[in-house]
Amino acid sequence: MTGPRYPALIQSLPETVPFVGPEVQERTLGRPFRARIGANESVFGPSPEAIAAMQAESAEIWKYADPTNHDLKHALAADMGCSTDNIIVGEGIDGLLGYIVRLLVEQGDTVVTSDGAYPTFNYHVAGFGGVLHKVPYKDDHEDIDALLSKAAEVNAKLVYLANPDNPMGTWYDAAHIEKALDQIPDGTVLVLDEAYIEFAPAGTAPKIDPEDPRVIRFRTFSKGYGMAGARVGYACGASALIRAFDKVRNHFGMNRAAQAGALAALGDQAWLQEVVSKVSSARNEIAKIAAGHGLTALPSATNFVALDCGKDGDYARAVLAALVESGIFVRMPFVAPQDRCIRVSAGKPEDIAAFAEALPAALDRASKP
Amino acid sequence: MTGPRYPALIQSLPETVPFVGPEVQERTLGRPFRARIGANESVFGPSPEAIAAMQAESAEIWKYADPTNHDLKHALAADMGCSTDNIIVGEGIDGLLGYIVRLLVEQGDTVVTSDGAYPTFNYHVAGFGGVLHKVPYKDDHEDIDALLSKAAEVNAKLVYLANPDNPMGTWYDAAHIEKALDQIPDGTVLVLDEAYIEFAPAGTAPKIDPEDPRVIRFRTFSKGYGMAGARVGYACGASALIRAFDKVRNHFGMNRAAQAGALAALGDQAWLQEVVSKVSSARNEIAKIAAGHGLTALPSATNFVALDCGKDGDYARAVLAALVESGIFVRMPFVAPQDRCIRVSAGKPEDIAAFAEALPAALDRASKP
Repeated sequence: MTGPRYPALIQSLPETVPFVGPEVQERTLGRPFRARIGANESVFGPSPEAIAAMQAESAEIWKYADPTNHDLKHALAADMGCSTDNIIVGEGIDGLLGYIVRLLVEQGDTVVTSDGAYPTFNYHVAGFGGVLHKVPYKDDHEDIDALLSKAAEVNAKLVYLANPDNPMGTWYDAAHIEKALDQIPDGTVLVLDEAYIEFAPAGTAPKIDPEDPRVIRFRTFSKGYGMAGARVGYACGASALIRAFDKVRNHFGMNRAAQAGALAALGDQAWLQEVVSKVSSARNEIAKIAAGHGLTALPSATNFVALDCGKDGDYARAVLAALVESGIFVRMPFVAPQDRCIRVSAGKPEDIAAFAEALPAALDRASKP
Repeated sequence: MTGPRYPALIQSLPETVPFVGPEVQERTLGRPFRARIGANESVFGPSPEAIAAMQAESAEIWKYADPTNHDLKHALAADMGCSTDNIIVGEGIDGLLGYIVRLLVEQGDTVVTSDGAYPTFNYHVAGFGGVLHKVPYKDDHEDIDALLSKAAEVNAKLVYLANPDNPMGTWYDAAHIEKALDQIPDGTVLVLDEAYIEFAPAGTAPKIDPEDPRVIRFRTFSKGYGMAGARVGYACGASALIRAFDKVRNHFGMNRAAQAGALAALGDQAWLQEVVSKVSSARNEIAKIAAGHGLTALPSATNFVALDCGKDGDYARAVLAALVESGIFVRMPFVAPQDRCIRVSAGKPEDIAAFAEALPAALDRASKP
């Protein structure tokens, strides 16, 4: 009984989990977290209209979802100012990143990203046998010039840039991204991850010709729209590239209630603006609390704040561990020097209060050998 | 501006849609279907407990789902009589089939299936560059002996078998499948698709040692449990193979409300039994109506009936087109000689009445040149 014969690529892959979920940590701790502010989920939730739409559609869940995502795609195209031919809807940005990597990267192909940027993108690149080149952050920003010159140097198929950035929360204005677009090496496609764009100041999202073949931008209902558990992401790109997703995607992969929820969420921009405003207040509050204990909040255009703990990664990891132990779910960057920070997602007042209460003891514990 | 550089494999793939969704057809028709009995969805819907669970969880959709599917996996393991190490949960059987193909098939690897069996499996095999060998059905059954000897002949990585079969509805009893297991060629893995197993007579599901490395069985909440639009499938196989899914799967790919709904659905076996009984009545009713017009219903262990229209594929396609035109969503096998049939899913009395009303005119229209 020989059983499965795995290709060499598959044999070489670790049984990776890009992130450990908070539920796993809760089972380990033996109790629920007091504050869930670690995965940049939106504690403010989705629009009540989105919840109502998902609840109504739950009774219709016996039907497969429309595989063309017709209604949602039309609404997104109107929102993005492009044709529906420029829009692909998929199972979260994670799912869509998997598809774009599969579409362009075969074994040995090169891809460029920043050292410490989104691990799930790296997971997909490794999963298809791509060779990943990483450039360091610069002053807690992804270093666009370094990304582009590395892409040219290694003849990259893809170069990844998140704007605003996760896990640091930093960002570039539109002009910077537009200038970068003009410097993309021939044959490289820019994967522009705009998961947090709704939280960024006006003037952050670049103007991009939807038919520009050098870039594809990714957005999501997981962050500003508060629907992380629904799995609805979308991408906007040249129609030829968008059509190519039909070669590999799981056509019937969308959840029907999620489709309906996303459509309703998009229609309630007032709710989104309210969330953005609450997130901004929460960021300020977190920064204030941190400052009271000698930590520095990095400027953020997202729904989280990176807090510089002022020492090295080991210290920040100790602070994080103590916070988690005391029931506060937070995360932190994986790579130095960004790993001197912990990353705290915007919370409701009660979440922030729990964080404020737990922080002094956590710092205290981390400081002791 | 060169833009994307696609690998040769991707270039070779068509922009396929394995199935056209009924919503697309409705937009073409300019009106909604009167009866939606073409995709083997369960018109009887999920358990009210599952609907309630999904509705409750809609308010919690701001949280990502547990990437380990802990609770659902435990319940499924108990139900299947195996360890949680033998269970993988994923985005429908379609999603899981994509993963198993990716895990085992690289370009040029061989795979065996029946000519006219599930197209989405074939789509995945083509998508990863596999070479598909097809053997004919035999008396409207998948031909197990032919599948196994072809698998041995071409040294297949995977051999696909649906039991009960879609699109014909035929099935083998457990003893047949168990005997087949013992004849699987060395190094071949049997993909046993049991999507319709809940509708099959007792004694259809084979006894399989969960650690048997030669087979992986796939099941779903889309059919008996009435949750096609939720996207919850699962597979049961040897723990080493199950662990391998963690190398490639979208760890945060599940919809949180769907997880909760599936768990509740699994807990309401009384509802499932009621659905199975209603489906059985509906099959009988469809067969009776068909017989009244000279069509022969094939025996079925699923939630649909293949109706032999008694002539060739062109005739059955004309019948189908006329039914669709008159507002009845049905589908049919793609391949001869199975394509002498149309395939009608179990419906509520009103669905079947609409079908009964439309059928005579459709047959009439198909008979005229």
